[in-house]
Amino acid sequence: MAHSSTNAQGALLEKVLSIVERENLVKGMDETKKVIDFVHPEELKKILQLDIRREGRSLEEVEQVLETVVRYSVKTQHPHFYNQLYGGIDEVALAGAWLTEALNTNQHTFEVAPVFTLVEHFILNRLVELFDWQDGDGIFSPGGSMSNMYGMVLARYRKNPEVKKLGLSSMKPLVAFTSDQSHYSIGKAASWMGLGLDNVIKVETDSWGRMIPESLREEAAKARLKGGDPFFVNATSGTTVFGAFDPLDQLADVCRDENLWLHVDACWGGTAIVSRKHRHLLHGIHSIRRTRRFKYLTYLRLPVLNSMNEVSTLASFFRADSVVWNPHKMLGVPLQCSAFLVRHKGLLHESNSASATYLFQQDKFYDVSYDTGDKSFQCGRKVDAFKLYFLLTCHGMDEMERRVDGAFRAAEYLAEQVAQRPGFRPVLESAQCTNTCFWYIPPSLRHQQENTEWWLKVEQPVPEKGLVNFFRMVITCYPEPQSRHMDSLLNEMDTLGADL
Amino acid sequence: MAHSSTNAQGALLEKVLSIVERENLVKGMDETKKVIDFVHPEELKKILQLDIRREGRSLEEVEQVLETVVRYSVKTQHPHFYNQLYGGIDEVALAGAWLTEALNTNQHTFEVAPVFTLVEHFILNRLVELFDWQDGDGIFSPGGSMSNMYGMVLARYRKNPEVKKLGLSSMKPLVAFTSDQSHYSIGKAASWMGLGLDNVIKVETDSWGRMIPESLREEAAKARLKGGDPFFVNATSGTTVFGAFDPLDQLADVCRDENLWLHVDACWGGTAIVSRKHRHLLHGIHSIRRTRRFKYLTYLRLPVLNSMNEVSTLASFFRADSVVWNPHKMLGVPLQCSAFLVRHKGLLHESNSASATYLFQQDKFYDVSYDTGDKSFQCGRKVDAFKLYFLLTCHGMDEMERRVDGAFRAAEYLAEQVAQRPGFRPVLESAQCTNTCFWYIPPSLRHQQENTEWWLKVEQPVPEKGLVNFFRMVITCYPEPQSRHMDSLLNEMDTLGADL
Repeated sequence: MAHSSTNAQGALLEKVLSIVERENLVKGMDETKKVIDFVHPEELKKILQLDIRREGRSLEEVEQVLETVVRYSVKTQHPHFYNQLYGGIDEVALAGAWLTEALNTNQHTFEVAPVFTLVEHFILNRLVELFDWQDGDGIFSPGGSMSNMYGMVLARYRKNPEVKKLGLSSMKPLVAFTSDQSHYSIGKAASWMGLGLDNVIKVETDSWGRMIPESLREEAAKARLKGGDPFFVNATSGTTVFGAFDPLDQLADVCRDENLWLHVDACWGGTAIVSRKHRHLLHGIHSIRRTRRFKYLTYLRLPVLNSMNEVSTLASFFRADSVVWNPHKMLGVPLQCSAFLVRHKGLLHESNSASATYLFQQDKFYDVSYDTGDKSFQCGRKVDAFKLYFLLTCHGMDEMERRVDGAFRAAEYLAEQVAQRPGFRPVLESAQCTNTCFWYIPPSLRHQQENTEWWLKVEQPVPEKGLVNFFRMVITCYPEPQSRHMDSLLNEMDTLGADL
Repeated sequence: MAHSSTNAQGALLEKVLSIVERENLVKGMDETKKVIDFVHPEELKKILQLDIRREGRSLEEVEQVLETVVRYSVKTQHPHFYNQLYGGIDEVALAGAWLTEALNTNQHTFEVAPVFTLVEHFILNRLVELFDWQDGDGIFSPGGSMSNMYGMVLARYRKNPEVKKLGLSSMKPLVAFTSDQSHYSIGKAASWMGLGLDNVIKVETDSWGRMIPESLREEAAKARLKGGDPFFVNATSGTTVFGAFDPLDQLADVCRDENLWLHVDACWGGTAIVSRKHRHLLHGIHSIRRTRRFKYLTYLRLPVLNSMNEVSTLASFFRADSVVWNPHKMLGVPLQCSAFLVRHKGLLHESNSASATYLFQQDKFYDVSYDTGDKSFQCGRKVDAFKLYFLLTCHGMDEMERRVDGAFRAAEYLAEQVAQRPGFRPVLESAQCTNTCFWYIPPSLRHQQENTEWWLKVEQPVPEKGLVNFFRMVITCYPEPQSRHMDSLLNEMDTLGADL
């Protein structure tokens, strides 16, 4: 390829573009085609003929590699690609991602990434506003697990800044709390951070999968009695299975009383913030009414902090300490795009700075406050912010809101169908987030007495709230889900299950 | 954009392609143009007019956004873009990245990423072979800092698997060692992992910036005397400033004697593995001669493990426990591409598994050993392996070797010129890796007595081995560096410095 590529500049890129256009990879695909032509690993290996040789490949062979990769890859932009907490991307999103790739920019200092540094700065500020915080800071990180670990690291640093230098070996065990329905990344973070999985307490949830605030309070007391040092609560906005939104406002009350950092894993459900109809689900991160009053007082220049009572009122305006939202999940931003936000300005830098003299010199000829490298765990960092900015600025917030509302509506429609339709049984009375959980009852099991034996026949039990195995459908914003997609999904299940 | 895009499918992608072709973003740019048209942050903000509105933008406005982003971004593919430990990418590399973006695949299970799971598996095995290990495992991670943390986490797990559950609070302080020239990510990892910066011992280096094995031995003894528990050594292959390669074979001897995990941060210098001429720099990770002998014995089916003595000989064939190489640095693979390799198969999974029942079911209908999600810290993971595979398979290893040798040759040429040319003074007698460090002596300071005052005039001192501030040039493989580029760099410095 070395010599041919100089003669045929752009040929390969044109090939990729033609594949994308031919396969409708950005327009939504033909519903009658398959999401994936599944082939088992050993067979697929034979087809792919993966090989790296001393000599290179001809242009024809190279194009063949591209064709084969596309043919056997899952079509994430297919209307029936569901259930993976990410989905298709549209042309605007892909164009933003392609430009980022072509520029191959590393996002650590303003001088090497002038445009993208400002874009990240801008979009983080807009997200802080969107969540109705008065002030805040943030960083884009490579995914929700990493962002959740950012939250835990900052909470620990705020609890005891000495940990950065001294480590944990002479400290009481720090204890973190998260619901029994939360994502496993909280445990992974605790394990990597040296807290240990045993010091992550799984707090009980109600029948909808939402953390019970009183249980949190009790668990915190128990942990203290056992000699632990509670410091961190992870609340979830949009759990993985049920789509549950933990009651943030009440959890924030417990956190205030118990002096715990409130981190909100809104990786999945954070997209509700875009919708005026659904953003109330995130109440507790933001608090519009209270914030307005605060702004009003500030505007009149009245002394808002003139009593202890007012200090505590003020503190309750902004309840969560940190939030993560992954627009790459529901909103159709290409992977990876995870925004970590923290309400305490300066803390990211204090906690993470290494002050490497060779890179983050303070005597540069421009305003170095735009250099982000000392706020980040990563040194080199891929540009993840631009594709989000590009999607939002090109389509506008009205269009994004329309898409989000459409995804929620599709999930509600599916929940209604599942409740009405013979052979289907909802696990919960309605959808939560865009998650709809239900059982399929095969024809041979309908109209029978529903005792334990019957349920065991429906599926082998799995340890999810003691329920027997069920289907979970999650829906994303793009390609836009329609009622007919939901209908055809249930029809398909009926067809496949007819003989069971 | 919502409605126009459905009418003009592909228009935006074509626009991105036309910008890439027009600006020669994959061919190497016009040398007479600027790498960057530098504009200060506040001024650039005015030009960019960053804004997200309720309504979207017209196609014309959207194209304008793309044009402006490109105009004010650093051209990393410019022949004179140096010194950032990454650089330009060619058309093959970009085509691989674009296809990955278009498919928007999440690399955590075989069923959602069949092709890319096999590609990652294949390329990791090839890298294990390339480093001459008998066996091994690995994972692609979002950058060198994260990969270095993987190494430290595995080392800690192997030292004491209980840490995963119990945490560090009742343990002796674990102590890590790294050279005073190593990357700051080792400190960041120790801080995040709860070891504390104070438990990272900076081991002395020689005048070339290489860790001194005897100093490591002494520091380990000192740490034990102080009550610490040494467990981990980070050796560097290609330090950030001097490009130094730590003497791995000798460090491995110390690690064997002291029972320490040897991790090699070859993020930068690992690219030498591609070159038959330069791979000796990594000797100690691999050990060709000894490995051959081992293979020979295996072939003859002789009992190789028949005495304690032979066990220790065998162990010395494979010296490093883990290695990181970032092909996105010198080799011209698009950001991000960092391969973490570990010699102990199964350890990644043991250390990192969370066994999330909803995602990594063990009762799937295919061989689940291809699911990577439980080896990874991340849950969702961007596909980083394919663009590396695509670059290597399309160009072939001969072409990649030619490029690597070319980069090393350019650095050597620059070092020779700096040694000969009036007004330039090398910091070291030759280049290391592709790093060349030198001082520029302005005309007004030449032919004078070189006392402390004189050196202070050359530059303000910075704390890098007590030397006064100097220039560091680093060179990457693409676009291919030529002698004339090196000459023109020095000419430019001479011109700019003429009046100093």
